[in-house]
Amino acid sequence: MHDSVRAVDWRDDHVVMLDQRRLPAEEVYLEIETAEEVALAIRDMAVRGAPAIGIAAAYGVVLAVRAAYREAGRDWRTVVEPVLGRLGAARPTAVNLAWALESMRTHFDAVDGDPEPKLLERARALHAADIEANRTMAEAGAAYLGYGARVVTHCNTGALATGGIGTALGVIRAAAAAGRLERVFACEARPWLQGSRLTAWELAREGIDANVIADGAAAAVIREYDVGWVIVGADRIAANGDTANKIGTLGLALVARALGARMMVVAPTSTVDVHCPDGGAIPVELRDPDEVLGVFDKRIAPAGAVGLNPVFDVTPAAYIDVIVTERGVIENPLENPPGRFLARA
Amino acid sequence: MHDSVRAVDWRDDHVVMLDQRRLPAEEVYLEIETAEEVALAIRDMAVRGAPAIGIAAAYGVVLAVRAAYREAGRDWRTVVEPVLGRLGAARPTAVNLAWALESMRTHFDAVDGDPEPKLLERARALHAADIEANRTMAEAGAAYLGYGARVVTHCNTGALATGGIGTALGVIRAAAAAGRLERVFACEARPWLQGSRLTAWELAREGIDANVIADGAAAAVIREYDVGWVIVGADRIAANGDTANKIGTLGLALVARALGARMMVVAPTSTVDVHCPDGGAIPVELRDPDEVLGVFDKRIAPAGAVGLNPVFDVTPAAYIDVIVTERGVIENPLENPPGRFLARA
Repeated sequence: MHDSVRAVDWRDDHVVMLDQRRLPAEEVYLEIETAEEVALAIRDMAVRGAPAIGIAAAYGVVLAVRAAYREAGRDWRTVVEPVLGRLGAARPTAVNLAWALESMRTHFDAVDGDPEPKLLERARALHAADIEANRTMAEAGAAYLGYGARVVTHCNTGALATGGIGTALGVIRAAAAAGRLERVFACEARPWLQGSRLTAWELAREGIDANVIADGAAAAVIREYDVGWVIVGADRIAANGDTANKIGTLGLALVARALGARMMVVAPTSTVDVHCPDGGAIPVELRDPDEVLGVFDKRIAPAGAVGLNPVFDVTPAAYIDVIVTERGVIENPLENPPGRFLARA
Repeated sequence: MHDSVRAVDWRDDHVVMLDQRRLPAEEVYLEIETAEEVALAIRDMAVRGAPAIGIAAAYGVVLAVRAAYREAGRDWRTVVEPVLGRLGAARPTAVNLAWALESMRTHFDAVDGDPEPKLLERARALHAADIEANRTMAEAGAAYLGYGARVVTHCNTGALATGGIGTALGVIRAAAAAGRLERVFACEARPWLQGSRLTAWELAREGIDANVIADGAAAAVIREYDVGWVIVGADRIAANGDTANKIGTLGLALVARALGARMMVVAPTSTVDVHCPDGGAIPVELRDPDEVLGVFDKRIAPAGAVGLNPVFDVTPAAYIDVIVTERGVIENPLENPPGRFLARA
């Protein structure tokens, strides 16, 4: 595993973000100096992936407190709140966004004078913790894969979606590095094609044997190629283990169960929302319906066609075999719900 | 239900075919005067859909015998055989192609002199029978739907895929005409997008309430919108009821079963291959892997990415609740296999 690309980073005195909307055609980095721009980048999906959104938000707080301190001096805490509100509202489903903001806010009281140095230190620590969590999860998840493993993954859960080597894609990287992975089948993930644009880009850079498949081909591929594991990330895991993730995950989980493959969710504990009792309480984002009527700016459906575009779905805990976190692996989350696991851990 | 578009037809002395690759942007008709051009049009998917391919092949035989009779006179039967071989090899999965050729061939012996008039009459009869079969199946299938039905369909099974109003889409049309259909969700059907290009085009022309969805959204939509039926066509049904259809059908069937929706396959008996004992014997076409690395001519995946592109999958009979044919409805095909049903019917 060579060094991964950085989706979000802090350089000199500002945020640097790889514009994922332009991948793989162009590798363009955005230089971002305000929290408002971070919120827009999250909303418009220049950065995406639950952990990467959390890291971007944490660095966004640094930019927000800098501006607030310049504007209001010691009253920065009051001035910064509406900015944090806008950051938090940028996307509804991934809980890592709210978690990162709350995590940063817990340090506000301890700050004396200019808040920027202390909060930059906290944002960097949060980023470093995600990198470390990725490594821990990758090893723990890969241990479940036998030699010659064939795996289906969905959307992008790699370096582009996280601070480090990725969640589900981190497990796949670790399995490949250990010589256990025969092949990964990457669902293209319509409508944004994070699979064929981003996951294929990361896998090609790593030299991991992979095939991009249409989302609808997953069931046939699981059956015909004797796929043992479907491995995905998560945007929010309820206390009972129900898991919101990229649209298509629910179908993969149901198909895996019917065909005898196993379902692994890989996510840091920052993705677990202990205040959310079950999947019914997770808000699911509906994006622009026109996204399914074409491909990016190219309209394909006829005039008069109407799209419907939920971008996440919720997989019941009963269909998940293993949830891998940086604090341990939860086997059979239906019997061992993440909320209880975290309270104990 | 107003008059449907004709995917394939015979006008004056040649075949007229709507070029479905250019829909919905352009409505272009191909004027075809040789069997070789018919074979290319089938291979390159200017015409697609199992019944429409069968009708195109039947008219292709008329063009083939005309050329053979001009070339060889009374020896036309020998000259025509390799042409029929090329027609039959144009696409491997849909059995209607072989069925139509065989059906036309049974009339060769009875011909005296110029074979064209007699065989044109047979091709027209075959086309007319498909139109009639569509109507019969539409009524029979719609009778299973309750008032306020919400339905998921996949790919295109309408007028563009058949000689008449369609198979699965014919059922949907009949249900809408009877005031029973609340809404249809049409999977876009990557990589060729027959759902968002063709089905959305037909539904918009008919004024039927519909939403185009990403293929991966089907499971969430079935659950969130309380969808009662998944209704699809078929490219080949084995004697035991295992059904080859557009890639994604297997996943829809497994998802429907898990979520309590029912699965209906609508296909004329020409789609049943009694010589094929089960799904394992059905050849599944793999098309150009680059088709999943972009959208038509626009490449999206990065250099180095490799696609895998099975365009059909096989759904076991156990996951199909109802097969609707023009000769009757087969409920529970696992217990009442189509091969046995046809032998009795």
